[in-house]
Amino acid sequence: MLFLPLKKNKMPYNLLKGKKGIIFGALDEKSIAWKTAIRCHEEGADLVLTNAPVAMRMGEINKLATLVNAPVIPCDVSSNEDVLNLITKTMEHFGGGVDFILHSIGMSLNVRKGKHYTDIDYGFNAKTLDISAMSLHRVLATAMKLDAINEWGSVVALTYIAAQRVFPDYNEMADAKSLLESVSRSFGYHYAVKKHVRVNTISQSPTRTTAGSGVKGFEGFINYAEKMSPLGNASSEDCANYCVTLFSDLTKMVTMQNLFHDGGFSFTGVTLPVIEQMEK
Amino acid sequence: MLFLPLKKNKMPYNLLKGKKGIIFGALDEKSIAWKTAIRCHEEGADLVLTNAPVAMRMGEINKLATLVNAPVIPCDVSSNEDVLNLITKTMEHFGGGVDFILHSIGMSLNVRKGKHYTDIDYGFNAKTLDISAMSLHRVLATAMKLDAINEWGSVVALTYIAAQRVFPDYNEMADAKSLLESVSRSFGYHYAVKKHVRVNTISQSPTRTTAGSGVKGFEGFINYAEKMSPLGNASSEDCANYCVTLFSDLTKMVTMQNLFHDGGFSFTGVTLPVIEQMEK
Amino acid sequence: MLFLPLKKNKMPYNLLKGKKGIIFGALDEKSIAWKTAIRCHEEGADLVLTNAPVAMRMGEINKLATLVNAPVIPCDVSSNEDVLNLITKTMEHFGGGVDFILHSIGMSLNVRKGKHYTDIDYGFNAKTLDISAMSLHRVLATAMKLDAINEWGSVVALTYIAAQRVFPDYNEMADAKSLLESVSRSFGYHYAVKKHVRVNTISQSPTRTTAGSGVKGFEGFINYAEKMSPLGNASSEDCANYCVTLFSDLTKMVTMQNLFHDGGFSFTGVTLPVIEQMEK
Amino acid sequence: MLFLPLKKNKMPYNLLKGKKGIIFGALDEKSIAWKTAIRCHEEGADLVLTNAPVAMRMGEINKLATLVNAPVIPCDVSSNEDVLNLITKTMEHFGGGVDFILHSIGMSLNVRKGKHYTDIDYGFNAKTLDISAMSLHRVLATAMKLDAINEWGSVVALTYIAAQRVFPDYNEMADAKSLLESVSRSFGYHYAVKKHVRVNTISQSPTRTTAGSGVKGFEGFINYAEKMSPLGNASSEDCANYCVTLFSDLTKMVTMQNLFHDGGFSFTGVTLPVIEQMEK
Repeated sequence: MLFLPLKKNKMPYNLLKGKKGIIFGALDEKSIAWKTAIRCHEEGADLVLTNAPVAMRMGEINKLATLVNAPVIPCDVSSNEDVLNLITKTMEHFGGGVDFILHSIGMSLNVRKGKHYTDIDYGFNAKTLDISAMSLHRVLATAMKLDAINEWGSVVALTYIAAQRVFPDYNEMADAKSLLESVSRSFGYHYAVKKHVRVNTISQSPTRTTAGSGVKGFEGFINYAEKMSPLGNASSEDCANYCVTLFSDLTKMVTMQNLFHDGGFSFTGVTLPVIEQMEK
Repeated sequence: MLFLPLKKNKMPYNLLKGKKGIIFGALDEKSIAWKTAIRCHEEGADLVLTNAPVAMRMGEINKLATLVNAPVIPCDVSSNEDVLNLITKTMEHFGGGVDFILHSIGMSLNVRKGKHYTDIDYGFNAKTLDISAMSLHRVLATAMKLDAINEWGSVVALTYIAAQRVFPDYNEMADAKSLLESVSRSFGYHYAVKKHVRVNTISQSPTRTTAGSGVKGFEGFINYAEKMSPLGNASSEDCANYCVTLFSDLTKMVTMQNLFHDGGFSFTGVTLPVIEQMEK
Repeated sequence: MLFLPLKKNKMPYNLLKGKKGIIFGALDEKSIAWKTAIRCHEEGADLVLTNAPVAMRMGEINKLATLVNAPVIPCDVSSNEDVLNLITKTMEHFGGGVDFILHSIGMSLNVRKGKHYTDIDYGFNAKTLDISAMSLHRVLATAMKLDAINEWGSVVALTYIAAQRVFPDYNEMADAKSLLESVSRSFGYHYAVKKHVRVNTISQSPTRTTAGSGVKGFEGFINYAEKMSPLGNASSEDCANYCVTLFSDLTKMVTMQNLFHDGGFSFTGVTLPVIEQMEK
Repeated sequence: MLFLPLKKNKMPYNLLKGKKGIIFGALDEKSIAWKTAIRCHEEGADLVLTNAPVAMRMGEINKLATLVNAPVIPCDVSSNEDVLNLITKTMEHFGGGVDFILHSIGMSLNVRKGKHYTDIDYGFNAKTLDISAMSLHRVLATAMKLDAINEWGSVVALTYIAAQRVFPDYNEMADAKSLLESVSRSFGYHYAVKKHVRVNTISQSPTRTTAGSGVKGFEGFINYAEKMSPLGNASSEDCANYCVTLFSDLTKMVTMQNLFHDGGFSFTGVTLPVIEQMEK
């Protein structure tokens, strides 16, 4: 006997029919960006995929390109030229502007090099901030200059609650995410005023992506987060669904927000399972 | 020549097909609850409508009942018996539990009586807190006892940013909304653990409803909010759309949150139009 | 050889010399209010002590009265008459208004009766909210009417982070503390405008007071809080010191704030000791 | 007849007697850092003053050095070597570690060059982030390496509410302040665990300093802030007093906090004077 979950029966809803979007950061099928691309495609959107050249070599973005029938345009987000090229090519491809953008980009050289937060290299740090946070500014500024986002368009960047509270192993990425959220608010103001474009961040549960797993102590805090979230951790599929709502016309007045998508973690002080664990 | 807004062409999406819900607080067609009932119905949901007997007499809920083909069950939310009766009758009507609830209820006796915040009557205040905030607890506790909300169900209560920052004329309703948001978090924890039910509040722009307009200085602050919101104030139709996403299966991991739906007001410190006005 | 901690050598500083204040809620020597009364007295303040008649019988307030050379005026804070009597008598005693007030009051009938949060009695709840939160309003409203707080006076109420995040065993007190914090902001606005009086809440670490210890699962969460606070939990002595700064002239522009006094707990997502415990 | 404000009579309190500290950023007598140096000196502290060489040439730090009897050690906070030299020389001067540090540093090249936020130069931006935010990290990391802050020491950095809400003319400094606040939390965790050193930010009202006045539209938003603050804007003298409390032993358990010192601005949604202005 075949069990078909009800959910599968109902989706898709054509929530993004006729919409066009850019998805940054789909490395492999564990990526939130990968799942989001799949879900946006199912909901009727046309996509352009992009990632850093080095990430494209490591990952499997071409496989995704086939699945969602989208071109891939490489882009190093720390390069003004690359971002300009991406936006220009995307507009040529679509014959006009886009309706949504997913920014799922983060990289920490100090984490990779195993530097402790109290002993980071400031050159590496500048690179981390540029790639993980100022890249959102660069994408939005370039898009604004080229008028590349349609009226009431929607931009989402992925972030983590370490921007608000300290998770020691998250290291300098916490600061990068704080900066990213601030850029999102600041640019969100200007793009709302100029063209009703909204910009939000989703603060997602820790997720077992290839990127996420690289963080030291990751298993410890994903388990802790699971025990501390009344609904459990949100998966990348859940996040993809949430992105779809934010790209849709149903959330047009939501902007400049940091939206926790974390099974309740953010507003839970402690849970019974954690208290029980503390008593062991 | 006929102008058809693109939006109308696309909706509905059947986002709530097969779902059942209870809508509290639809007074008349200006009500957010009214618009939400309409949109939920369009998206495929089956509804039960309810309001306080006194509000039913003043308003036009029966007209809405016809439009969305739903029964109306009166309920004074300050009465345990009434709430029990509502939930019981609803379960009988649907032959089972519900998938979503909208709590759009607020009443301040001190505001009605023109009492200044620094001079409120504590008996009236107790009534305000009971009707505007503890009513959410009563509904959820009764639903939990009767197991009236289905797995992964979604509860939304409407609130206002006066719960975080002072708007002097909002009077004791600010305190009531703070209490409501706390109840939402607290009960959200327990209902998530017990049955994956999520509970959130939407902090909506000031809206020209019959209830909202009663607040002293309302026109002043709705205009201020409009000037202070990069996207302008969110309308009741926008709010109805946002409610639909929160009742859908696409937001299953969002719980215990207070979600600002306000065109960016909440994260805007000042805008150019306000600065210009200050210089007059 | 005798070791004298440097701290003892330096204090007091005469920070409150010439100031007059009312201290609510000193039950016994474990109470934060007790320690605060002692420290205010050491810093040169003249005090009036008050507590509920029933708490006075259980506790040892008269011992404190001797230590700080202050009269005790009984006051049931849920009674308008009692509060009026307290303020009137205090003004008679001092021959004028006061400069500061400490509100350290909380009581939950549902907790005492062992009711689970999802099954509270609403009559008890109304009493909890009235005593634990609206009592601050009653004190401030009465003081405003009698012009009992001097220009630039300072009011502090004690609260707990359960007002922001769920700690399941804290039960309805979480909602009461949210309400208290809202009252503090709301009244803080009006009293600032009227007479430059500032009103703040201190969100204190869990503290082993006679009241605190009554909460179910208290030992579990005080240990968790200790492990989750980079500086450890703040003690009642620490809190008394912090209150002194807020009553002093050095913090005159701080108002309508909720001030975390918790060794860093509030902005810590996880600590290494907690992660280690999770891995056991 | 001579009018002596009561305040002058009572201060100082010897709150910082025996303490040693470093004050960054005293440009001229309008500077918050200048006033804080004066107040710390009055309260019994021994100081080292520092500023960027270029700022020292523009300002009058030597005048301050005479007033508070402190050496001046130039330091470009974007240089590891300069920071190392500053900390080393300070320890030599004091014959040991310091008890407190004030970080009052901010500089935006894009603002100076008149670039709009949506059109910033990323090279300038990197410099802004490094000087205005990462400088705090550099100072703390260097101090930790040299064990230059005594047990229970206190570090305060000045910030602005643009880190939370958008003030359009504040430009990229908003993002820099968000980053600064995150660094403060992140490093605060590690320094608390290692040596009970606490790190906080004070989010100060807009202040008519030489630096502040450079921001475009400054007069507009200082007036707006004045009208939106129930107590009015906090002055630099008020801020100096508040810093003294945070450097004292009375606030030892406050860490990783962003403390609003703004006359209530941060928790005020609107005021009557602003509403009245909107109606003009």
